[in-house]
Amino acid sequence: MTRIITARQGKITEEIEESAKEEHIDTEILRQSIADGTVVLIRNTNHKNAKLVAIGKNLKTKVNANIGTSMDYCNIKEELKKVEVAIEAGTDTIMDLSTGGDLDLIRKMIIEHSTVPVGTVPIYQAVVEILREGKTIPDLDESKILDVIRRHLESGVDFITVHCGLLLRAVKRMENTGRIMNVVSRGGSFLVNWMRVHNQENPFYTYYDRILEIAKEFDVTLSLGDGLRPGCIHDSTDGLQVDELLVHGELRDRAVEAGVQVMVEGPGHIPLSEISANVLMEKRICKGAPFYVLGPLPTDIAPGYDHITSAIGGAIAASAGADFLCFVTPSEHLRLPIIEDIREGVIATRIAAHIGDIEKGYPQASERDDSMAYARQERNWERMFTLSIDPVRAKEFYHSRPAHSQDACTMCGDLCSMKLSSQKQNIK
Amino acid sequence: MTRIITARQGKITEEIEESAKEEHIDTEILRQSIADGTVVLIRNTNHKNAKLVAIGKNLKTKVNANIGTSMDYCNIKEELKKVEVAIEAGTDTIMDLSTGGDLDLIRKMIIEHSTVPVGTVPIYQAVVEILREGKTIPDLDESKILDVIRRHLESGVDFITVHCGLLLRAVKRMENTGRIMNVVSRGGSFLVNWMRVHNQENPFYTYYDRILEIAKEFDVTLSLGDGLRPGCIHDSTDGLQVDELLVHGELRDRAVEAGVQVMVEGPGHIPLSEISANVLMEKRICKGAPFYVLGPLPTDIAPGYDHITSAIGGAIAASAGADFLCFVTPSEHLRLPIIEDIREGVIATRIAAHIGDIEKGYPQASERDDSMAYARQERNWERMFTLSIDPVRAKEFYHSRPAHSQDACTMCGDLCSMKLSSQKQNIK
Repeated sequence: MTRIITARQGKITEEIEESAKEEHIDTEILRQSIADGTVVLIRNTNHKNAKLVAIGKNLKTKVNANIGTSMDYCNIKEELKKVEVAIEAGTDTIMDLSTGGDLDLIRKMIIEHSTVPVGTVPIYQAVVEILREGKTIPDLDESKILDVIRRHLESGVDFITVHCGLLLRAVKRMENTGRIMNVVSRGGSFLVNWMRVHNQENPFYTYYDRILEIAKEFDVTLSLGDGLRPGCIHDSTDGLQVDELLVHGELRDRAVEAGVQVMVEGPGHIPLSEISANVLMEKRICKGAPFYVLGPLPTDIAPGYDHITSAIGGAIAASAGADFLCFVTPSEHLRLPIIEDIREGVIATRIAAHIGDIEKGYPQASERDDSMAYARQERNWERMFTLSIDPVRAKEFYHSRPAHSQDACTMCGDLCSMKLSSQKQNIK
Repeated sequence: MTRIITARQGKITEEIEESAKEEHIDTEILRQSIADGTVVLIRNTNHKNAKLVAIGKNLKTKVNANIGTSMDYCNIKEELKKVEVAIEAGTDTIMDLSTGGDLDLIRKMIIEHSTVPVGTVPIYQAVVEILREGKTIPDLDESKILDVIRRHLESGVDFITVHCGLLLRAVKRMENTGRIMNVVSRGGSFLVNWMRVHNQENPFYTYYDRILEIAKEFDVTLSLGDGLRPGCIHDSTDGLQVDELLVHGELRDRAVEAGVQVMVEGPGHIPLSEISANVLMEKRICKGAPFYVLGPLPTDIAPGYDHITSAIGGAIAASAGADFLCFVTPSEHLRLPIIEDIREGVIATRIAAHIGDIEKGYPQASERDDSMAYARQERNWERMFTLSIDPVRAKEFYHSRPAHSQDACTMCGDLCSMKLSSQKQNIK
């Protein structure tokens, strides 16, 4: 009995009541949305201390933070600190993308530390284990894939990315697509490597029913990874990308039918004017399945500031209906993120999500902006800090340069327009 | 003989040739655009070391950085450092908004230090001088206003903001607008204060012809300041704001007719979905006059990160046709910016401007993105740095965490998708 199946039977569970209350939505509407696959409730019962997170239609736009070690840089303490920082900064979920160190242990520790759902990309670990055995990526097989997925879900992983939509037919036409960058997804590149050697179908597609069975067993959400997402704005919204989306539409149907919750992942690097079309296509082709976008990044030239580029794309995507924004940090394209990057990435993405919520008409989104406006008009600084997306930074900035003028800041002092326009008569 | 008048006579000046070359545009098209007021060429002949900057139709989107002392914080050395940092970061213009210290001296020093055009808001100095004489804002009169404007232009100021469009009729209906924040423009609030006491028309409107005469004398560009811009998303695109824009339409006609170059300033705080409508209105009502937007900020709740919020709004505004983006720094709404804020603000705004240029189809905008994509595919790090919007930061981030794997970064190491997808066979 999974959440989808229970919802289909018309039952309002405690989880639905809990989420409906938090999201200011009617329980029956939420139940229907879970039943028809437009909302997913994310939490693995094996992740004891995790908050339940609802993602999808009519709900607040959610934010994910990626953390994890790499083959070149592995410091578990630092990654655990990132968990804390990401949660403090207000992330809704975390993904552990570790590829360096003792992966089972690191994952276990991250899950224990995280009070928000944790996602993973099991193929990373499957490939790392294969390589550590002295083999190569094409040695990856069904049993390794299913074993790693099971280990992840048993350990409490709340959602997993699986690149099931990247098919052999795409690999075959890959040389003639006109793309500058064929594959920029790590998981995607592993599978392309595998398929090129074997000339056989993607095992994640071939064994999709087995993956669904395991996911069903733990009532965990699948996130259909976009292995063919464009890696630069030049390559966006092309045949390869859209073809994979069509496969995701089919896979979404099979998941929902099987009673498994499913999200669809989206690009990536896309020009500003194509962002809303990408959201529309996902919503139509995947029957309203929650759309989980990485960025998107509407320019490629700002490494060091890709959290900003990504916030621009994310705000537009969320406004157009994307449900879940994966953060991008200032370090993207340059290095494994440092701790401070995590905070910057989460906050930038929360700004984008909030702007999306205003446009979506999410209850209480613009009310918070209005409260801020009243607080500003009244120069009520404490209230402004409280209403800020990052109260600590707002307060720190304000106090770092103490104003001589009462109830103003050092930008304008006594020439503050809010003070002046409140006064009906002369000022001194 | 001003640039507009010369252009109307059909002359292709050296300035037009210089700008056309830099902007990859035909000289005759540029001449026509100057003649019809859709492009302005900014430089005061008294600003000897300034670069000529062209703003408007078919041209690269430009970026402005605000600096300047305040009544509460005055450190000339710091402001001069901000000039350097802003120019290094790639700003196209600087505005000196000083209100503290010896204003004539500070302005002179900033102009001398600046190799890009410098704008000012003369009413700030006029009001500060009045207050220093022990008087109040309503003591401001025609002679003080015109005297300060003349002093600014003589000293080499390249463009000035004048709030000529905020009329007495707006002040009279101000109490019943439903706005949370009536006036958030500093210049606007001075004039509202003045009009409330005198119950007379805005002197900047009354003496507009005199202002045009002085501007004409120095062939300097007027920027029509939006004293009634919304200060929070709740107040956006309302009657007060649009009424001022209508006045700007009239003032634009009078300026162009008189041979004076003119830009129109725009909001401010506006929800994401209203941004393109605001650009459209300005372009229609002001006959294509260059649109100079502050932000816009599509949410009010992110003090400490308003450079990001502003980059979101700015990217959409530029994509919709805004010509000139005024930066917003992380310190906005909290304090006078520190030096580092200037760099962050300029870069964030340049990202927005570049995204706009991609959407506008500006020559060579997306070509740079494509070059970056090729460099990434080839893992050509030096080339990536060179193509970055901030090569220094990109390089610093990359080298701060040296990769063990050849030609990859510490994010993915040997699992780099670009490396993998370039290989046709097994990897180790």
